[in-house]
Amino acid sequence: MRLGTQVLKRLPLYLRLLREMEQGGNVYASGAALAEALNLDPIVVRKDLAKTGVRGTPRLGFPIAQLIVEIERLTGADAEMTAVLAGVGKLGSALLGYPGFRRQGLSIVAGFDAAPERCNIILSGTPVFPVSTLTETVVRLGATLGILTVPADRAQRVAEMMVTAGIKALWNFTPVQLDVPADVLVQREDLAVSLAVLLHRMRERND
Amino acid sequence: MRLGTQVLKRLPLYLRLLREMEQGGNVYASGAALAEALNLDPIVVRKDLAKTGVRGTPRLGFPIAQLIVEIERLTGADAEMTAVLAGVGKLGSALLGYPGFRRQGLSIVAGFDAAPERCNIILSGTPVFPVSTLTETVVRLGATLGILTVPADRAQRVAEMMVTAGIKALWNFTPVQLDVPADVLVQREDLAVSLAVLLHRMRERND
Repeated sequence: MRLGTQVLKRLPLYLRLLREMEQGGNVYASGAALAEALNLDPIVVRKDLAKTGVRGTPRLGFPIAQLIVEIERLTGADAEMTAVLAGVGKLGSALLGYPGFRRQGLSIVAGFDAAPERCNIILSGTPVFPVSTLTETVVRLGATLGILTVPADRAQRVAEMMVTAGIKALWNFTPVQLDVPADVLVQREDLAVSLAVLLHRMRERND
Repeated sequence: MRLGTQVLKRLPLYLRLLREMEQGGNVYASGAALAEALNLDPIVVRKDLAKTGVRGTPRLGFPIAQLIVEIERLTGADAEMTAVLAGVGKLGSALLGYPGFRRQGLSIVAGFDAAPERCNIILSGTPVFPVSTLTETVVRLGATLGILTVPADRAQRVAEMMVTAGIKALWNFTPVQLDVPADVLVQREDLAVSLAVLLHRMRERND
């Protein structure tokens, strides 16, 4: 099923809340309770939950365990995705230590860095290798996603190494507009862009 | 002028490229050159640049210095915005060390943390104080933006401290849906959500 971006952005919110509810011993969740907890319109929640195919029971609500399974399937969290990360600086280290990725089916199997003092160590359970070994390591581990947290002036070069090694998707945390073949998926996370949107919204409020 | 989100997301890209071009000794930039460098549709670029009010010259293009000034004005980068950051862990430290914020007019004047060993130090030029002093420090420094990089279970409490201190906008890097007064602007940066979108796009390609 092709899902809209807005739905896709809400699914992880439901998932996180449902897991918490399940851990708290709950078996059923009502759409109204989810809407209230997440500050969402109940109509939006009802439409989103309909996409899971899970049927609710009057007065009880939706079976939480089933909702979790179906939302995991819709968000791809049920299939393991193998990633490598290049650039183990502050942001890269923060991403390696982020506990949520694994729950979403993402497994970062290797890190790479150009600085010798950051190589051949284990960081948050992930081994870090010299960037010179990137291509062979990616091939060996069969990684499909590359996470880029290198300095801007190395982004294009490292991206090319990843693509050469067979990486089909890049999660780009650098400010660089990467030049890669059209069949490589690139998703940018640009804090400068987010900040510009935020500052504009703040100014608008003040006007 | 009220700008659409898509335009707002592109303006920092132009700004970064124009500054590079200026540093490279260029005086004029053509819309076509900007479109090519940023992988954008030339028609989109022309419409975006029209919003700056800067007039191009046939064959030469747009005066770069003037474009920079006008885009800075549109994105709020010309007005200094004072922020504090709570939670100086890996992600918080990465944000304190991010060089791009200052160029966009954002000045992080203080950090806060609950761990004594992370307090009363200077990190990337920013002093870090105990979180217990947050309210008084925010009032003293007159900060208007609060950046939240605390653990999830502290997010709501720290957000409330910030709001009590007069903070009018929160940049929320935690997965928590904050409950704050309606006049407080909240912008979320949720990596789990970004990852869900990315994994879904990857699966779609494979189908």
